[in-house]
Amino acid sequence: MDKPQKIYRIALDAMGGDFAPLNEIQGAVDAYSAKSIDLDFEIVFVGQENKIKSAMKQLDMKNLNYSIVNADEIVTMDDDPTIALKKKKNSSLYKGIELHAQGYVDAFISAGNTGAVLATSTILLGRINGVSRPTIGSFFPSDRELPVLVLDVGANVDCKARFLYEFAVMGSIYFRNMYNIENPRVGLMSIGEEASKGNEIVMETHAMLKESNLNFIGNVEGRDILHAQADVIICDGFTGNIILKFAESVLGFIKTKFKTFANKNIFNKIIMASFYPIFKKIFQDMDYQKYGGVPLLGVNGVAIIGHGKSSPLAIQNMINRAVEQCQKDINEKIESALNPQNMLQKSND
Amino acid sequence: MDKPQKIYRIALDAMGGDFAPLNEIQGAVDAYSAKSIDLDFEIVFVGQENKIKSAMKQLDMKNLNYSIVNADEIVTMDDDPTIALKKKKNSSLYKGIELHAQGYVDAFISAGNTGAVLATSTILLGRINGVSRPTIGSFFPSDRELPVLVLDVGANVDCKARFLYEFAVMGSIYFRNMYNIENPRVGLMSIGEEASKGNEIVMETHAMLKESNLNFIGNVEGRDILHAQADVIICDGFTGNIILKFAESVLGFIKTKFKTFANKNIFNKIIMASFYPIFKKIFQDMDYQKYGGVPLLGVNGVAIIGHGKSSPLAIQNMINRAVEQCQKDINEKIESALNPQNMLQKSND
Repeated sequence: MDKPQKIYRIALDAMGGDFAPLNEIQGAVDAYSAKSIDLDFEIVFVGQENKIKSAMKQLDMKNLNYSIVNADEIVTMDDDPTIALKKKKNSSLYKGIELHAQGYVDAFISAGNTGAVLATSTILLGRINGVSRPTIGSFFPSDRELPVLVLDVGANVDCKARFLYEFAVMGSIYFRNMYNIENPRVGLMSIGEEASKGNEIVMETHAMLKESNLNFIGNVEGRDILHAQADVIICDGFTGNIILKFAESVLGFIKTKFKTFANKNIFNKIIMASFYPIFKKIFQDMDYQKYGGVPLLGVNGVAIIGHGKSSPLAIQNMINRAVEQCQKDINEKIESALNPQNMLQKSND
Repeated sequence: MDKPQKIYRIALDAMGGDFAPLNEIQGAVDAYSAKSIDLDFEIVFVGQENKIKSAMKQLDMKNLNYSIVNADEIVTMDDDPTIALKKKKNSSLYKGIELHAQGYVDAFISAGNTGAVLATSTILLGRINGVSRPTIGSFFPSDRELPVLVLDVGANVDCKARFLYEFAVMGSIYFRNMYNIENPRVGLMSIGEEASKGNEIVMETHAMLKESNLNFIGNVEGRDILHAQADVIICDGFTGNIILKFAESVLGFIKTKFKTFANKNIFNKIIMASFYPIFKKIFQDMDYQKYGGVPLLGVNGVAIIGHGKSSPLAIQNMINRAVEQCQKDINEKIESALNPQNMLQKSND
């Protein structure tokens, strides 16, 4: 059951994205304006106060419920993932996560350095009981309405079977709660459907998932992501990151092909100009903004990581997602599912 | 230097593809009709003689120079890769490769079971001196004219660094000779550009490639394939197979999106109907038929593997590719490059 109404406090890294703090503030304003009456939240902007205030003067802040926590330093995209922990404790990224760890806020959102959010969250928030490694998932578009959740997409390069099993548990709980799908189909990424296909870790994981109480549909292949043959697809972070980056490059590749065609002659240019708006419409669900950000699962808190180029819409969706994740007690459910006591009970059902 | 003109004999698995033997025969006829005068070849169809002859009656055979070697059995797509070696020695697949191993033909082509061609070729033809594992590469379209060669795409699931190094040598030689690129840029697939990024095998391979005399440009990421940041991209067969199958699913995904759009109303239908031919034209180099098939590199012979759905055009291109590979002495060049004596000399240059 969902909790009774409370005001969720969301720390927003105001210096995270490439267009910070403007897009961050605008996204927060939009999220607040569009929120439904049965939920309430306030935004805690974390970052350089003068820059935040000066950006606010350029925007219509409407009735946004917010506060500002000053943080002088900025973690850049090129910084080493451990920078915030080692050297930039006055950064918006560190301070925002620290506020969450200390219980002042319910969630943390950043469009900044993914590795730094991962490392800092893991240390400051700690892991959920039973979780070996926090993981980052990503949403892939598919030929149905719902996206497909692939995890891990880069947090854990070398994985043991146990890690992959835990990713499956976390992904399944997250998908069930966020998309109201009772028993999300969990697939294991491999190079053939048979249990004997894949590398050693995959075969070991296959056996573990088969014994679990997840809705495990077996191995899936590269082609099964876009065709949504599973709701949640599990792989190590090396494989997941490569597929994710390949997938992200497809839209740009298509645009280049269209441009080359258009540049051949004036007729082609006219055809492409008239088709392009349709193309954009058709591919809008390949747009990362729709999903806003990706959840960092397995930490003792709610942390959402967005694309560096996050638009106000992307930030808005990240806020909505954070509030929803808080409301649905996803971490409690993960802890319960990974509790050996509960696993035993369920397998005896 | 290329050899003086000779007549290349190409064994063609007439029972391999989903539309065998019709597409196989038509492809051979087309290849022969379109061949340039400075090269000559003849086709040895291997398969069920009665079926081949009856298919030939339906086609205009033109002046095709061919012979038929009867083989009663057929290796199906679902057969275990070792089937031909263990149980189907009378199959077109086994007999065709055997003809090659015995020196009766210069190359073998099949649109059949990839795993079976790989396993049977490796055993019957043997490996080139210095090659630990034969590998299968695949051509990816890119935003330039030339495709990108990714290898391995499934032959070797678990790889040692030495295997990946050899794939790089073979891929580089193949690309140089087939596309007349003097120093193909070799990239190592990973999840970040820095040498420290990736799993353990990737880091070890990075060090080996850096020491080599290949034009190694460092690590590349998933997004770098379609943007052709390297000519030849190296990865283990687990990763490569997943990317390949993901990539193959993109076109179908786009078609589904277009169809969904078209089915919304009659106006959309008209727009899509008029745009579809253009779309097909733009994406023609995403069509596997253009590349025909993929080479099996590292075996003591020339073996080309095609898609099960190979069209006559795909078969035609596979034949052209096989003849070219014979002409260019690619295997001798690979053997020379992997000879420790030569490697030593080159690194002393």
